[in-house]
Amino acid sequence: MDLLSATLKRIPEVDPALERKAQARIDNLTKPVGSLGRLEEIARRLVAITGSETPSLERKVVFTFAGDHGVTEEGVSAYPREVTAQMVLNFLRGGAGINVLARHAGAEVVVIDIGVDHDFSGTSGLRIEKVVRGTRNFTKGPAMTREEAVRCVEVGIRLAGEHARAGFHIFGTGDMGIGNTTPSAAIAAVMTGVPATKVTGRGTGIGDEAFARKVLAIQRGIDLNAPDPRDPIAVLAKVGGAEIGGIAGIIIGAAANRVPVVVDGFISTAGALVAERLDSRTADFMFAAHRSVEPGHAIMMEAMRLQPILDLGMRLGEGTGAALAMTIIEASLKIYKEMASFDQAGVSRKTD
Amino acid sequence: MDLLSATLKRIPEVDPALERKAQARIDNLTKPVGSLGRLEEIARRLVAITGSETPSLERKVVFTFAGDHGVTEEGVSAYPREVTAQMVLNFLRGGAGINVLARHAGAEVVVIDIGVDHDFSGTSGLRIEKVVRGTRNFTKGPAMTREEAVRCVEVGIRLAGEHARAGFHIFGTGDMGIGNTTPSAAIAAVMTGVPATKVTGRGTGIGDEAFARKVLAIQRGIDLNAPDPRDPIAVLAKVGGAEIGGIAGIIIGAAANRVPVVVDGFISTAGALVAERLDSRTADFMFAAHRSVEPGHAIMMEAMRLQPILDLGMRLGEGTGAALAMTIIEASLKIYKEMASFDQAGVSRKTD
Repeated sequence: MDLLSATLKRIPEVDPALERKAQARIDNLTKPVGSLGRLEEIARRLVAITGSETPSLERKVVFTFAGDHGVTEEGVSAYPREVTAQMVLNFLRGGAGINVLARHAGAEVVVIDIGVDHDFSGTSGLRIEKVVRGTRNFTKGPAMTREEAVRCVEVGIRLAGEHARAGFHIFGTGDMGIGNTTPSAAIAAVMTGVPATKVTGRGTGIGDEAFARKVLAIQRGIDLNAPDPRDPIAVLAKVGGAEIGGIAGIIIGAAANRVPVVVDGFISTAGALVAERLDSRTADFMFAAHRSVEPGHAIMMEAMRLQPILDLGMRLGEGTGAALAMTIIEASLKIYKEMASFDQAGVSRKTD
Repeated sequence: MDLLSATLKRIPEVDPALERKAQARIDNLTKPVGSLGRLEEIARRLVAITGSETPSLERKVVFTFAGDHGVTEEGVSAYPREVTAQMVLNFLRGGAGINVLARHAGAEVVVIDIGVDHDFSGTSGLRIEKVVRGTRNFTKGPAMTREEAVRCVEVGIRLAGEHARAGFHIFGTGDMGIGNTTPSAAIAAVMTGVPATKVTGRGTGIGDEAFARKVLAIQRGIDLNAPDPRDPIAVLAKVGGAEIGGIAGIIIGAAANRVPVVVDGFISTAGALVAERLDSRTADFMFAAHRSVEPGHAIMMEAMRLQPILDLGMRLGEGTGAALAMTIIEASLKIYKEMASFDQAGVSRKTD
C-alpha cells in the first residue's frame, strides 16, 4: 500500500472519555467551573489527542513549506515571484516574522523547499524536497499531476513521522509562496461549494484590478479543470499547490502519530481541508491558530467546525499565527498541570 | 496638593508622531504592509507610550488586589466570603491561575490586601495596604467613605511609582474579591448610563435566583446612594470596592510614569473606567487584555474605545487575562525589534 493510504489507515479515534476525564480534573482546580473558557477546552483536547493524562509540549516545531505558482502569470499577486526564494533565504537567516514568533514560542522552524522555482542546491539549513519547480498555470491546465500531488502530501507525512519519532510534541503548519492565496481560494471554492467571488481576498494587498484578475483566474481554473470535490487529491493537483499538499501531509502525519497540529491561516487551512476531506478524523487533531482576514478562511474553518484561538487581523502566513497560538496552547496545558486543586489549597467550594 | 491630584497632573500626552514613526519602521520589515494586524498596532503604541524607539518589556508585573464586599450579605455570589482570604493564600503559594499564567508570561505577581476581611498580619509575601476590612453593604449606605476611596487609589499610585522606579516595563492589573462583579456592574451602570439589567452577569456562576438578587442589589445601591457619574471618586466610594480603587490607581500611576498597563477583565475594567473618567489620557496607556464573558465588560470597553487583544471566554479575574495578553504584547515588540527589513534581507518590494 502507498504511504498516504497506509497513514490514513493509522489515524486513531480520539476518545471522548479522555476529554471528560481531563475536564473533571480541571473542574477541581481553584477557580469557578468553566472560568478559563477556551484554555480549558484546549487542555482537555490535548489530553484526548495525545492519549496522555499528562501531556508535554516542551518540543515544538513549525513546518514552513515554500512553493511557487504558475498562476502568478495571470497577475494575481502584489509581489514578484522571486520573493518566494528570497523569503526562504530570509527564513534561513532568522529575519522573518515566523523566525521571531517561533523563537518567542520556543519552537523550531523547519523550512522546506517543496516547489520553489529556484535551485537551492547547497543551501544549508534548508530541507530540499522539491516535487515541482513551481506549479503550472491552472488557468491553462492542471497545476500538478495527480502523482505530484500525492508526492507533496507524502513529503509532509514523512516529515511529521520523523519529527514525531524525534520527540516533538506539537506541530505548526506554515507556508511561503507568492500567489498562493489564489490556489487556496480555489480549493475553498471547490471543496465548500461557495462561489469564487466569496472566498477570494486581497492576499498580500492587491488593488481592485488585480483582485478582479484573481477572481477570474480562480473561476477559469475551476471551470477548465473541473476537479471533483469528492476527490481531494484531484482538487489539490488541479487547482492547488505544492506547499498546500505538504501542509495536508503534516496534518495527516500528525493525526497518525497523535501529535496536536496547529493550523496557521488561509493557506494552511486549505491544506487542512484537503486532509479533512481525505479523513475527517484529522480535524480532531487540529487547533485553528487564528482568524485570518482572508474571507475564505472563515468559510473553510466552519466547514471543519474549527474555532480560531486568536483574532488579531493577521494575514502573513509563514506559520506566524501557528507559532503565536502555540503560546496560548502551552498556557492552557500549564493551567491543567500546575494549578492547585480546592483540596490542595484549602479553598472552599461553591455554595449553591 | 494630594497625591492623586498631583499624579493626574503628571500624566503626559502620547505623541501620535511617535506612533507614525514606529509604523514607518514596521512598514519596512519583510512582510506585506499591515499583514501582522494588531501586532503592529500594539508595537507602535508601545513606542508612543514609552516615548522610546526601542522599548523593553523585560520586567513585567501583575498587581492582584484583594478585597471583600459588604454586598455579599445580599446573596450575590456563588462562593462564601472566606474564599477571598483563602485565595490570597493560594496566590502566595503559587497555586492559582494567575501564578501559572504569570510564570508563563515571565511576570512577577504582587498580591495586595487592600480590603480583605481577614487579618493577614505576619503573612510573608503579601503586601498589606488595608484600607477597609471589607466594604460596607452598599444597599444600606455607601460602600466606602470618599476618603477611603481616595486612599485605595493612592495605594495603587504608590505601587505603580515604586515599580516604575524599580525598572518594571509593563504592568498588569488583577483582582480577587468574592462578590466583586456586583460593584463592578454598579460602576458600569452609573458611568455608562446603561441599565443594571444589561451590565450584570453571572460572575463566578450563579443561578437565576442569585442573579435576580444581584440585579436588585445593584439597582438598590444606585438608587439609595445616587452617585454623580461626573464624580468618579464618589462612584468608587458609594458603589465600588477597595480593589477596584487600587486598580484605578495602578492605571493612573502607569500613565504618569509612561508605563504600558494591561487591563484584565470585568473588575479591572471598572477600575480602568474610574481612572479614565478622572483623566481620559489614561486610556492611551491601556491595553485591554481580553473580552470577558461578563456583559458589562464590552459596554465599558466601548465607552473607552478599547479593543480586547484576546477573546477566549475567560472570566476568572486575578489578572489572568492580563498575564496572557502580555505574551502577545511581548511578541508584538519582538516583531518590531527583531524582524529584518527589505533592504537587510535583500527581498524585493511590492510591484504595484
